[in-house]
Order: sequence, then structure tokens, then C-alpha cells
Amino acid sequence: MDLPLNPFKAALRARTPQIGIWCAIGGSVHAESLASCGFDWLLIDTEHSTVDMPTVQSMLQAVAPYPTHAAVRPGWNDAVELKRLLDAGAQTFLIPYVQTAAEAAQAVSAVRYPPNGTRGVAGITRASRFGLIPDYTSRADAEICLLVQVETAQALTNIEEIAAVPGVDGIFIGPADLAASMGYPGNPDHPDVQDAVLDGIRRITAAGLPAGLLSLNPDLLERAAAAGSVFTAVDVDQ
Amino acid sequence: MDLPLNPFKAALRARTPQIGIWCAIGGSVHAESLASCGFDWLLIDTEHSTVDMPTVQSMLQAVAPYPTHAAVRPGWNDAVELKRLLDAGAQTFLIPYVQTAAEAAQAVSAVRYPPNGTRGVAGITRASRFGLIPDYTSRADAEICLLVQVETAQALTNIEEIAAVPGVDGIFIGPADLAASMGYPGNPDHPDVQDAVLDGIRRITAAGLPAGLLSLNPDLLERAAAAGSVFTAVDVDQ
Amino acid sequence: MDLPLNPFKAALRARTPQIGIWCAIGGSVHAESLASCGFDWLLIDTEHSTVDMPTVQSMLQAVAPYPTHAAVRPGWNDAVELKRLLDAGAQTFLIPYVQTAAEAAQAVSAVRYPPNGTRGVAGITRASRFGLIPDYTSRADAEICLLVQVETAQALTNIEEIAAVPGVDGIFIGPADLAASMGYPGNPDHPDVQDAVLDGIRRITAAGLPAGLLSLNPDLLERAAAAGSVFTAVDVDQ
Amino acid sequence: MDLPLNPFKAALRARTPQIGIWCAIGGSVHAESLASCGFDWLLIDTEHSTVDMPTVQSMLQAVAPYPTHAAVRPGWNDAVELKRLLDAGAQTFLIPYVQTAAEAAQAVSAVRYPPNGTRGVAGITRASRFGLIPDYTSRADAEICLLVQVETAQALTNIEEIAAVPGVDGIFIGPADLAASMGYPGNPDHPDVQDAVLDGIRRITAAGLPAGLLSLNPDLLERAAAAGSVFTAVDVDQ
Amino acid sequence: MDLPLNPFKAALRARTPQIGIWCAIGGSVHAESLASCGFDWLLIDTEHSTVDMPTVQSMLQAVAPYPTHAAVRPGWNDAVELKRLLDAGAQTFLIPYVQTAAEAAQAVSAVRYPPNGTRGVAGITRASRFGLIPDYTSRADAEICLLVQVETAQALTNIEEIAAVPGVDGIFIGPADLAASMGYPGNPDHPDVQDAVLDGIRRITAAGLPAGLLSLNPDLLERAAAAGSVFTAVDVDQ
Amino acid sequence: MDLPLNPFKAALRARTPQIGIWCAIGGSVHAESLASCGFDWLLIDTEHSTVDMPTVQSMLQAVAPYPTHAAVRPGWNDAVELKRLLDAGAQTFLIPYVQTAAEAAQAVSAVRYPPNGTRGVAGITRASRFGLIPDYTSRADAEICLLVQVETAQALTNIEEIAAVPGVDGIFIGPADLAASMGYPGNPDHPDVQDAVLDGIRRITAAGLPAGLLSLNPDLLERAAAAGSVFTAVDVDQ
Ligand SMILES: [Mg+2]
Ligand SMILES: [Mg+2]
Ligand SMILES: [Mg+2]
Ligand SMILES: [Mg+2]
Ligand SMILES: [Mg+2]
Ligand SMILES: [Mg+2]
Repeated sequence: MDLPLNPFKAALRARTPQIGIWCAIGGSVHAESLASCGFDWLLIDTEHSTVDMPTVQSMLQAVAPYPTHAAVRPGWNDAVELKRLLDAGAQTFLIPYVQTAAEAAQAVSAVRYPPNGTRGVAGITRASRFGLIPDYTSRADAEICLLVQVETAQALTNIEEIAAVPGVDGIFIGPADLAASMGYPGNPDHPDVQDAVLDGIRRITAAGLPAGLLSLNPDLLERAAAAGSVFTAVDVDQ
Repeated sequence: MDLPLNPFKAALRARTPQIGIWCAIGGSVHAESLASCGFDWLLIDTEHSTVDMPTVQSMLQAVAPYPTHAAVRPGWNDAVELKRLLDAGAQTFLIPYVQTAAEAAQAVSAVRYPPNGTRGVAGITRASRFGLIPDYTSRADAEICLLVQVETAQALTNIEEIAAVPGVDGIFIGPADLAASMGYPGNPDHPDVQDAVLDGIRRITAAGLPAGLLSLNPDLLERAAAAGSVFTAVDVDQ
Repeated sequence: MDLPLNPFKAALRARTPQIGIWCAIGGSVHAESLASCGFDWLLIDTEHSTVDMPTVQSMLQAVAPYPTHAAVRPGWNDAVELKRLLDAGAQTFLIPYVQTAAEAAQAVSAVRYPPNGTRGVAGITRASRFGLIPDYTSRADAEICLLVQVETAQALTNIEEIAAVPGVDGIFIGPADLAASMGYPGNPDHPDVQDAVLDGIRRITAAGLPAGLLSLNPDLLERAAAAGSVFTAVDVDQ
Repeated sequence: MDLPLNPFKAALRARTPQIGIWCAIGGSVHAESLASCGFDWLLIDTEHSTVDMPTVQSMLQAVAPYPTHAAVRPGWNDAVELKRLLDAGAQTFLIPYVQTAAEAAQAVSAVRYPPNGTRGVAGITRASRFGLIPDYTSRADAEICLLVQVETAQALTNIEEIAAVPGVDGIFIGPADLAASMGYPGNPDHPDVQDAVLDGIRRITAAGLPAGLLSLNPDLLERAAAAGSVFTAVDVDQ
Repeated sequence: MDLPLNPFKAALRARTPQIGIWCAIGGSVHAESLASCGFDWLLIDTEHSTVDMPTVQSMLQAVAPYPTHAAVRPGWNDAVELKRLLDAGAQTFLIPYVQTAAEAAQAVSAVRYPPNGTRGVAGITRASRFGLIPDYTSRADAEICLLVQVETAQALTNIEEIAAVPGVDGIFIGPADLAASMGYPGNPDHPDVQDAVLDGIRRITAAGLPAGLLSLNPDLLERAAAAGSVFTAVDVDQ
Repeated sequence: MDLPLNPFKAALRARTPQIGIWCAIGGSVHAESLASCGFDWLLIDTEHSTVDMPTVQSMLQAVAPYPTHAAVRPGWNDAVELKRLLDAGAQTFLIPYVQTAAEAAQAVSAVRYPPNGTRGVAGITRASRFGLIPDYTSRADAEICLLVQVETAQALTNIEEIAAVPGVDGIFIGPADLAASMGYPGNPDHPDVQDAVLDGIRRITAAGLPAGLLSLNPDLLERAAAAGSVFTAVDVDQ
């Protein structure tokens, strides 16, 4: 059995647009049903949901045979949580609330094996297909895709530094939190917020990384695409 | 759909006694069964149980139609855990092991949206009834009830400072841990512990907040009521 | 606590159109999310899904506070299954594959207490709100709504006899099975099938009962409404 | 590992009173909590609940170390259901709604291996402790305790015939259904019903079998004991 | 998306030996772990286990990406159960306790759509990949593999008649039940039983169908292979 | 009911070899099945798996009647996680990634009640058999067995200091992580790693504590035994 390649990571590198959907309802039937809908990726969200670890694993299993990529958002930039999700076979992560380059570097470290990082090693896990993937430990890092979420006014000022952290594969702008941090709670479509989002996308792109966002506003999505956004989630499952 | 008001918070403000029960067994059938028993509130405990996030959510769902209020105790004063419980629709929290005003302020910050706090923002969750509650983000804080648990001899000395933290809606005394911290492990009914509990209740009350406790000792409950306790849990489900 | 009235049954009696959705994915979060969408009813399907008994109960709990009615389709016209679903608090049932008046009468018997039927009696269940609903046993039948599904060419010929069975509250036409039985498997939109569906609706209506169907074909839905259909499901959750 | 003996069956044979509780809420934590309460037996009810097969098994596991015996009530007198519960390790069954000696004999057959019955054989199950119990297949029958439930006026008339069926280890009277069948739905405490219950207990006893019942009425329980009842459930967990 | 072909059915037709394992422990992680072990097939057993419907579905999902085929054994030759398992995407079934050609024909009918059978029709299920598989209803039958279990002395006498039922794709001999029916409960390795098993395999083969069995006895397995057995399970997961 | 003694702790003190198995697949049926296999201990791993809190509890329940000891590995050296596992009744813990004596002392503190530590107190939990164990709070510490995992080159240098921390009951060497930290990721059988493992075992033994390891390499296991290893896991369940 060979190491599953990460087509989403490859697409991001090639700047091929990836349209996705937010998945905050747990369950493998639900996940497989969504996986059949034609999205390029789906984000299994554990940050703003009650989806738990065994459910994430069952959802990864359900999505596996489909030409859709399942990314996972942990509850936080937490190495223990990431270790468990990695062993469950997740390959793409969206890390919430990264404010600084140091925090981004911490996330990178958590998802990479020594000497490149500090990911804990287990020989027999779903990630290594129960030990069947040859050289999993030395090859796993290459197929991990790490996306960090910039979602405050302060974090926006650090985009270039965050983008410069080796191992960060993309930066996502979270409009809801950004709106709140800018004084417009519950109003991510406020013009000031939209401007900040679009400016962020441009700066991420200029810094050499693919930019992403979640929005249900078709107009903003269009402007974001024009600004260079690559991975965009356009709907939520609830 | 309108924002669910928090009748328990209102009752605490009005100093209307609220009799409750501790719920450490998970499950929505169990929760609904308890909800039909006439208690003013029930405490879904995740600190000293294995009740997990999806189960809490299902219990909140089961209790929703009943005139009983479900409070949740997280495993710790942890912003990530609180964020998820808030999104699941919990409105009242009992925070374990708060020792200082700073820790109390941290809890307040975790349950309030910017600029009043640092709660993460998600548009479509059970808390906002999947986006149907208008202005949820700006109105949610008002119906959140934050109770902190004072449960060591040291924490008792800080009652007035903790009570002075804006956003703390009540202080709960945990006799079991207090007993242990006072050198009487397993003996919450020791006279010294009871005195400390009753003294704490008086000081919380004097500091302008409703006091609460859990006890299965009818005599202590009576004396606590005389001392001013407002929210009291009188039984445990196991 | 009072016996929950069945607004869906009342609406059917008043011939007020009820727009619904098919729910074949299990889970209480999913169910609550759907319940917030504004449908008049949702059909929790266990016949063509793996949704099991505890999940149905948790979904009934989740939907309870919403102005949406949850009907349940058992796997079969099975008295044991119906007994358990009734005790779980379901009040409306869609019985698959009823071919004759005798089978319809069997279903009626299963959902009614003696002497009107043979439903088993348990005192303390979710249905009776754990015994809090006064006279539940004598009043329950009145709020049960029994819908039977006519889904073969042969069953269609028996519509008038089935409609004449006391206790049948509505008849539903299942286009998918009907199509297969008419020699058009997988083609419920075939003109012959549509004609049979519409003819069935007219005859059900003429026989004095509300007619229903599930279709994702807007044109057929429109013609069915013109023919008198009252309870129509217009979408599926997968 | 040796075959677990069935202390409840032995107690019934010795006519040692066995006080029990009805358990209609699923979950292994709940079951273990109840198991610690001192009851002689607890009845895991799947007939009037949504408790499912995996949950029954987890409850049997949780109760195993305690000096309490877990009996299981299947949804019906159904050989397939009984086969699965037997393999899960249940040893005592309460069969609902047995009306005749023939139905009782059917239940006996379902719980015994050939040539004494028709129970399906599997070598490696929890019942045989995964094959570790020597000669499980030839010794299992001896520790199975089969109780049948007589719960209609008609069934009462057949008590002596049912009691004469070899392999029936006790007869239980279900007051709730009996009341309904006698024209007093929801009123199991009606004097006529109580008389019928007590008369049934006397006749079961006279027929040489232990009698049992569930009642929350202390007065009836006392009179039932005087009439000879051996296994009585005195409370319900909901 | 195309209809998943059934490689196990093709292998049976080609008489290519298929080595399998019995899976009586539920859970998708367990199933995926087993799927990685190199067996040609694994039998998800619900007859002698507590594995339930949602768990079977999650196990089918987990196994899907592996070159292993998951067959399912229902609790009984039950059309309702088969309908649900079919919709969950199972394609191969092992039907317990088939005694006669009529019972075999009943099973065939349950797994085929009209006019070839009586399988109920649902448009949007996992089986049809949520409607994405074109012409699923008319093509599904071809990839269903129906195996029946002959497991009593009496059933053995009917092998030729059972094998002659169109739509039966193989016959499996169950040594454990056969041993019990022959008067050797718990002793499937008794020479008389082994002779009966081997004779059965020869007659099944002579009747033009692939024969199968489960045994942990290497010697019997070898002799069975010599007698022509094609699908053999050689281990159990518990 | 009396406090369950910890036979594994006693065996470690007596230096009686304890052979174990790694359990990374959740589920109580799986756990009971493993418990019947004759291992001295089994390690319920939550660090490199998705096994969650309720599942751990159900596994502890399933294993309870067997002469096998269930140890639990938390995701991290985390006092909140340990508090919940302790209340669920776990008595033996394997703490991952302990680097220093200070970290070891932190773990000790988390599993002991005041004044010996900081474990939170709850009166009614599975650990105290729902309050039935007399003096649980004062006696619990004595039966807790705390094992720490040394798994980096740096941690190895601290063995003697870690071993000197009162309350550490054994030290486990994690070859997989050690290999990675020494520059041999995925190669725990490299001679340098093996030498380090064996040297570690000798030093742990010399420091007066029992040493343990997990390895599937029979040769290493033999050399480790010769070096003094006491608790060894020799297989993994996946
Ligand atoms: Mg955010
Ligand atoms: Mg405490
Ligand atoms: Mg149908
Ligand atoms: Mg009954
Ligand atoms: Mg069999
Ligand atoms: Mg490690």
C-alpha cells in the first residue's frame, strides 16, 4: 500500500481553485453524502461544532474513496489534538486563530516528524495504513498540508511574517472573527471587513502562498477570486 | 426565531432560589427524564465524568422544551472547550477551580464576544439557531450566565476580588475539594468545612452576587439557605 | 404537563398543505438543523436508511422545540417496531408497503391502545413524558396520525378499501416503488407512473382522505397539488 | 474460565425473594450506577424503550462485576432477537405478551440448543467468553432462566398450561397491559386489576412456578408478596 | 460515478479461492484495520453479534477503499433487514439457516428489484451513491451476490434443490449448527460432522455452485479445499 | 464494596514480569475480547488513537471482571484529562513524553488527592463505586500506578532524576519516538536505538524502578528482559 498523495496540497501549489464546503455536522453518512456532491474539498470543523475525534475518523473513512479532499479544523492550535488527528489519517489542517509567525511555526512543528518537527511517532495507525505504507515516518511530512487561519486585525498585520514560516502551505482569512475584531460583530459583509479580507488575500498571494476564505456572499467570493483566492468554501452544511 | 432568554440567569439576579441536580451520566434520554422531574436547573457535568461534547449537545437538545435550565460544567477553565459548548447552545457555565480574579476574568473573556471578550465567532451554529436568531453576535452575551467555582481555602480568601470581576454572575462553593484542601479529604461535612462553606456563602452574598453549592446534606442545605445561598444542587444522578 | 397535540394531524384534517423533507441521515444535530429550515414536517426514514431506534428518539428530541412535525417511517408494518417508536414519542407514522385494507387495519391496531387496538402499555416513557401527562393511555390515540403508503399497481386498486379503514389518517403514494411495480424501475417520472400517481391522489381525495407524495420533480408536484395532494415531501437530505 | 452460574435462577428455584428495578434508559454508566444500588436484579427493557442491541451488551458488561443480575426483555417473543441477546451473554429473559402454552414453548425452544431447542450455535461469542468456557454448548441451557409475561385477561386463563411447559422458569404478570385488556387502560391499580394480579400470582404459585410482577404501588406489592410473588420490580429508572 | 462491481462475485464465478475472516466486533476502525490485512473477504456478522445497522454501514464505508470485499450476514432471512442493508451499500449477503429451495427463493426475491424480486426502491441511498450511479435500479441486481447457509442435517438433503434456485450464487456450510443438529453440539470437528461438511461441499460443487465454509481447523480446511470449497473463512476476530 | 486493589502495581513492585498488549481500537466488545486472551495487562491508548473518554470508560467496565489489568495512556501529561480518567475508574496511567523530573512530579500531583497532590475531588464516581467504597478519598492514592514514558534522547539523560520523583511507579521507554529523536525515524530496531533502549532499561532498574517497553521485535524483547524489563507490551491490536 502506498502513501496517499494529497491532491489538495498539489492543487494549492498549482494555484488550481478548490471549491469547498464547511461540515459542522458529524457523522459518516452525512460526510459520504457530502463527498458525493462534487466539491473539491470539505472542511470537517471541530472548532465551532461538537464533532469529536472518533467521528472525524469515521468521516475521513467515509470520504476516502471519493475525489474530494477532507481537511480538518482542530479546536485550536494544539499539538496533542493534531497528533491524534494525524494518526487518524488527516492530511490537511486548518489551524484556527494564528496570530504570529511563532504560532504558525508551532503548528508546523506539530505536524512534522523529527527532526523537522515534534510530531509523536506511532508505528501502527490509520495514517500509516496500520504499518503497510513503507517508510511512512520519513515520507509523511511531504503530503501534509498546513493552512493557518488569520482572523483578527492584528493577525492581518503579520501576514508576511506568517507566510514566511517554512511549512505553512496556505493562509485562510476568517471573516467572522475578523469582523468581530474590527468592531463589526456579526457583520462580516461590512465594507471595511470586506476590504480587509480582500487586502489580506492580495498580500497572502503576494507573499507567495495560496489564500483562502469561507463566505456565503457570492459577490465577495467573486471579488476574492479576482484578488487571487485559491481555496474557498462557499457553503455550510447546517 | 428569537434568542432564547436565560431564565436561570434572571432568577439568580432576582435571588429566586433555584433547586438543581447534578447530572454526571451522559445521554439524552436520561437528560430528558431528569428534565421532567421539576428541578429548576440541572448541571451537566463534564469535569468529573466522561460525558463528552456530542453528548452534552444532545442533552441540551433533550432538555430544551422543558421548564428546566441546563447548565454545563466544562472540564476546566478552558477557552476552547467553552467556545465549543457555547456554539452547542449552552448558556450557563460553572467553571471549576477558579482561584483568583484573574482566572475569573479569563473565563468571562472566553464566553463573551469581542470587544467584551475573546469568544470565537461562527455564524451558523446551534447557539444562533443556525443563523436564524437576528443579531445573535451582539445579543448573545446578555443571556450567558457565568458561574465560577471556589473550592480551595486559598480561593475562599479571594471571594471579594472574584466577585468584583464584571461578568461573573454567581459564585459556587465546591465542598468536596474545599474539604480536601482544608485537610479533610472525603469529609465535606466536617464542621470546619461547613463553617467555611457558610462563611463563603455569606461573603459572596455580601459581595453582591448569588451564592450556590452542591450538597446532599439536608442540614447543611438548610443552613446554606439561611446564609443566603440561591442556586443549590441537592442530588446527584449516579 | 399536557399531551402534545399533533398539529400535523390537525393540518391534514383541515387539508392545509404540508410541505416536508425526507430525512435519511441520522443524528440529532442534523435533525435540529433541518428543523430550523421552515418545513412543515420532516420524515425520519428508517425504511431505506440505517437510522436506528436510539437515533430516532434523539432526533425527535431535537426537533421537539421547533414548529416542525417529525413523522417516522418504520422499516415495515411491524407492531413491535411501532410500539417502540410510539413509546419514544413519535406521533405520526408513515407505514411502508400497505397493500390491502387488512394490512392497513393491522397498522391501525398497532398504534392504538385497547380496546381500540393492541398497542402495548407502558406507564413511564417519553411518550407519556415519563408519566406526567394525565390520562395518557386514554388520550394518546387521538393525537396519533397514521399514514399508509400505497406503492404498487395492485395496492392502487385497493385505495378505496384502504381509505375506508377507520384510523387511517392519510394515504401516501410512493412513486419509486410504484414505478418499479409498473415495469419502469428507476423511472418514477415516466408518464404512465405520473398518471397513476395523479389518479391515485384524486381517488384518495375522493375517498375522503388527505393524499401525500414525495417527489423532487417540480412539475409533478404542481400537478399533484392540483389533483389534491395535501402532504408533500419535496426534498431529500442526502 | 468457567460458565457463569445464574444466581437469579437459583434464587427463583429456592423461592428467595428478588427485588428489582426496571431499566429503560440505555447506557453502561447508568447501568453500572444502578448495579451498585443493591437490587437483586435489574431488567434491561428493550420492549418499551429504544435501548438497542449494542447498548444491552455494554450494560451486561457494566453490571457483570456486581452482585446484581441483569435480565433482558426483548421487544417480542422473537427467536432472532433472543439468539443475539444470548450470544451477547444475557442469561435471563422476560418474554413479553405470551398468550398460550404454544407461545411459551416457542420461547423455550429459542433459548435452548439442539436437541432441546433451536438456538443457533456460534463458537466464539461473549456468552462462551470467546470460546474459553469448556463445553459451553452443552452446558449453557442449564443457566438460562426463561420468564414469560402474562398480560391479558385471556392469557391469565392459560396460566396453568403455560406453567406446565418444560423450560419456563417463572411467570410474570404485567399489570399495565392487563389493566388495558380488562378495560381499565392506564389504571393498573383498579381493584379488579389488582384482584386479577393477585389471583394470577396465587395460581402461578400453585402451578409450581415462581411468580413476579412490576409495581410502584407499595400496597399491591405487599399483597403480592403475601400471595407468593418471588421476583418483584419496585421501581423504574425514568 | 459508476456502479461498484462485485469482485467477490466474479471470483466465485471463476472459482478463484477467496480466503476470509469473520468479523463479529463492530466498529469502523476495527473494520479498516482488518481490511488492511490481506484477506479476500470479510464477513460482517450481525447474526451472532450485537453489530447493528449503523455500524454495518460505517464498516462498509471503512472497507470501501481496500481490495477486500465486505459481505454481510443479516440476523435472519428477513426482507426488511436485507432491504436496509442493500440500501447501505452491501452487495454480498450470507443468509443464515436456509432449509429449503423456497426459503432460498425468498432470499433471492428480497435482494432483487421488480420484476425479478421484491426489493423496495429508494432513489437516493449509499447503494446508488446518492443517486449518482446511472440506472442503478436496473443494474444493481447484477452485482448482488447471494450466498445461503445450509446448516442442519435436513438442509443438507436439500442442497441440489437449493442450488437450482436461480439467483443463489453460492452455498455455505455452517459446521457449528450442523454439528448441533447432528447431535454433536459444540463439536464441529467430530468425524461425522466433517464427513457431512465435505460431502456437502462436493454436492454443492457438483450442483454447479461455489461452496464455502468457516473453520479454524487447518486440516478440515485443507480437506474442504480438496473437496472444492471456494470461499472459506479461516479466522474469527474475537 | 471495597477499593479495588491494583494487582499490576503489586506485580511491578514485586518485579513480576507483566506481558501486555496495546489497544488502540476503541470499543467494549473488542476490549472484553482482548481481556479474555490471557495478557497480564492491556494498554488503552488514547494518545495515538481516536479512542475517547466514554469509550475508555466502557472498556474499563468490560475488562473489570477479567484477571487482566487495564492501563490507560492519556493524550498528554494533562491534569484535566487525568482527573476524568481517574474518576472513570482507571488506576494505572502511562504518561507520554515526560522529559524531566519536574514533568514527572506534575503527573504525580495530578493523580493524587490533596495534600499529596492536586487531583480534584468528586464524591460519587465510578472510581469510588458511586460512593460505596469507604474512605475512597484517603485510600485511592495507594492503588494508583503511575508510569512515565521516556522517549527522547534528552529524556534518557534524565532517567535517574525522573526515577527519584516520589510517586513514579515505573518508567517506560518508547522506542518509536526515541528512534525519531535519535535521527532514525521509523526505525526503532536500529542498533543505536536498541542500545539506547537497553541502556535505559538498565539505568531505570538500577535507579530502583521497574522498566517497561513496547516492541514487536522478539529479539529486542528478549534482550530487554535480560536487561531487567518488567512490564512489556508485545503486540498491537490493529
Ligand atoms: Mg474563527
Ligand atoms: Mg471540584
Ligand atoms: Mg417504498
Ligand atoms: Mg406489556
Ligand atoms: Mg448458524
Ligand atoms: Mg510516543
